Amino acid sequence: MNNKPTSAELELMLKDLPGWSHENDALTKSFTFASFRDAISFIVRVAFEAEEMDHHPEIHNVYNKLKITLRTHDAGNVVTEKDLMLAAKIETLNTNK
Amino acid sequence: MNNKPTSAELELMLKDLPGWSHENDALTKSFTFASFRDAISFIVRVAFEAEEMDHHPEIHNVYNKLKITLRTHDAGNVVTEKDLMLAAKIETLNTNK
Amino acid sequence: MNNKPTSAELELMLKDLPGWSHENDALTKSFTFASFRDAISFIVRVAFEAEEMDHHPEIHNVYNKLKITLRTHDAGNVVTEKDLMLAAKIETLNTNK
Amino acid sequence: MNNKPTSAELELMLKDLPGWSHENDALTKSFTFASFRDAISFIVRVAFEAEEMDHHPEIHNVYNKLKITLRTHDAGNVVTEKDLMLAAKIETLNTNK
Repeated sequence: MNNKPTSAELELMLKDLPGWSHENDALTKSFTFASFRDAISFIVRVAFEAEEMDHHPEIHNVYNKLKITLRTHDAGNVVTEKDLMLAAKIETLNTNK
Repeated sequence: MNNKPTSAELELMLKDLPGWSHENDALTKSFTFASFRDAISFIVRVAFEAEEMDHHPEIHNVYNKLKITLRTHDAGNVVTEKDLMLAAKIETLNTNK
Repeated sequence: MNNKPTSAELELMLKDLPGWSHENDALTKSFTFASFRDAISFIVRVAFEAEEMDHHPEIHNVYNKLKITLRTHDAGNVVTEKDLMLAAKIETLNTNK
Repeated sequence: MNNKPTSAELELMLKDLPGWSHENDALTKSFTFASFRDAISFIVRVAFEAEEMDHHPEIHNVYNKLKITLRTHDAGNVVTEKDLMLAAKIETLNTNK
């Protein structure tokens, strides 16, 4: 689960994660919701997944903007398969594409 | 806002609120979500609307099932325009139709 | 985990769960919060525990009132140790005693 | 509401807001909760206040850490009375002091 994909593998996987990018050894995506209320409700929804995976995103919210950053602390703060799995899960929840 | 619609008016308005019914002087709808997590996140989202309108639903949740019941206490526990407005708002939030 | 305690055992355990009662083969407690906002935030907090235990309460909310009902469906809708554990967990979360 | 307090006034008011500091024309406080679940539930609770005041914090969460930053965009991104009011409100909600 904490396997670190190669750069080539990562590039390939990111093709299936629209809006996600690989920056500073993290996966990150910025979301703009219709409202603050939508952003907060989405944070709650994502939080349930984070708890199930025991893998917690960095969450940054200002009004209807949300930035989620994923990296694996246990693996030395790099992107691992776990981050890719959580990003993929978050995408399935995001009805605001 | 606390105007009580006639039965005829209510029937007409309910045509635009799929799944909502008029029972025991209340508007009610039962939702089935894909998960408990979806149900809880939806409760949060609805709660923001309830607070804005200062009009609070009766919420009944069991796992992925949610039943929302609307009536206006101030008007003697009958259905008023306020209930219809909140029901209409909830419909706009429900992406699980 | 799905062991059904005897009535005597249940009575004993309920002594440590103030406000909880055993009714209709379920554990139940009614909470009154300072606000609707407190009630909803508490529902979210409880939901995380429910997910971890994969044991989901019946939640009934009207404004600042919350009624939580616990029973074990898999065991034939009776009270089991799992319900007692979730009730105990909920008590640790309830700062509104 | 958008009045900008003087530095002297601000220093005085911050005495009643333990843990809050004035940095980069913003009020900020870092919270450490017992769990991610507590942090997320607190975000929900704060969000209701933000909506009521129509004044939204910058929220930064990593696991059980939460950093809240308050400034008033309409007033040119400085600290106003509105920020102080929201900080005071958040303090009343924080049972994790």
